[in-house]
Amino acid sequence: MTADFFDLLKTRRAVRNYQDKDVSLDLLMEIIQDACLAPSGGNRQTWRFIVINDRDTIGRLSEESRTNLVAELDNNPASTAKRYEAALRNPKFNVFYNAPSLVIICGDKGSQSLEVDCALAASYLMFSAAARGLGTCWVDLGARIYDPKLLEEIGLTDDLAIVAPIIIGYPKAIPAIPPRNEPVILKTIS
Amino acid sequence: MTADFFDLLKTRRAVRNYQDKDVSLDLLMEIIQDACLAPSGGNRQTWRFIVINDRDTIGRLSEESRTNLVAELDNNPASTAKRYEAALRNPKFNVFYNAPSLVIICGDKGSQSLEVDCALAASYLMFSAAARGLGTCWVDLGARIYDPKLLEEIGLTDDLAIVAPIIIGYPKAIPAIPPRNEPVILKTIS
Repeated sequence: MTADFFDLLKTRRAVRNYQDKDVSLDLLMEIIQDACLAPSGGNRQTWRFIVINDRDTIGRLSEESRTNLVAELDNNPASTAKRYEAALRNPKFNVFYNAPSLVIICGDKGSQSLEVDCALAASYLMFSAAARGLGTCWVDLGARIYDPKLLEEIGLTDDLAIVAPIIIGYPKAIPAIPPRNEPVILKTIS
Repeated sequence: MTADFFDLLKTRRAVRNYQDKDVSLDLLMEIIQDACLAPSGGNRQTWRFIVINDRDTIGRLSEESRTNLVAELDNNPASTAKRYEAALRNPKFNVFYNAPSLVIICGDKGSQSLEVDCALAASYLMFSAAARGLGTCWVDLGARIYDPKLLEEIGLTDDLAIVAPIIIGYPKAIPAIPPRNEPVILKTIS
């Protein structure tokens, strides 16, 4: 298997529109293996994975996050979820965009490098998926899982925090690259 | 230019041993352009870059971080820098491993996605460098820059925080891949 990195740089896009086709569990596991090649603080590899390859469970997690986000918006109109409010108040909105697969990258709340380690693993995971013809999207709106029964169902204990819920599936189309700002270089010393 | 992603996955290593050869500023700028293709929270692209392609400045930043880390160790023997104590107490130790180039990825302290955004850009930057035959290492020990004159010199204002100081250079050798744990899968639902 080969995939040119410089192509991937430009074709790895956030995908929110998926084919009906399922992703095999074997393929998800290969991608997770690749994610574990990421660097981490002190090589601690603090990342943990929850693999959900079942549309019903993904739908229930979506509904849990959506209702918690609606409550957040009711309580705090300045919530960061504000820009998604119209979508979130639609009971039919699936925060995971009806993707067939969801990998939740999480880790120890006590780790100083939790966010950075999980983001590095997420980056590797998203590249590896793209290299295999899959689309992904890091869905921050999908991280509001508070219901104890659901937390138990997905194996998320109290000591762990969700960093990156990433949906995976075969893209219907690869969207165009959204605009990127020119790099902001604060100083060049040479 | 081509580079196979699946090769890169395995050859992108933390490099701490560099050739004397300098890296051109143009090449550093190309790598930074690639880093800006990373995804970010709400596509906010909060990353900022400081480019230091001068060994004298890198040496002074190293000394600043080293002495601040020694003070940290004196004040708090449980500091996370403990495992590097022997090296740090050696006045000749360069925390940047005598690399010819240093790119500091930083961003707005007020951004909720600061660490995650900068880590994603860092991951892209490290991959892009590896694809171009360069070595990199994210040197967390190099983030302790407190001296106001040095901060001004590198353009780091009060509103910004350093997330990823990344050294870049031509590797003397690519080290062997350090051991990776098997992925910890908390739950598989399929």
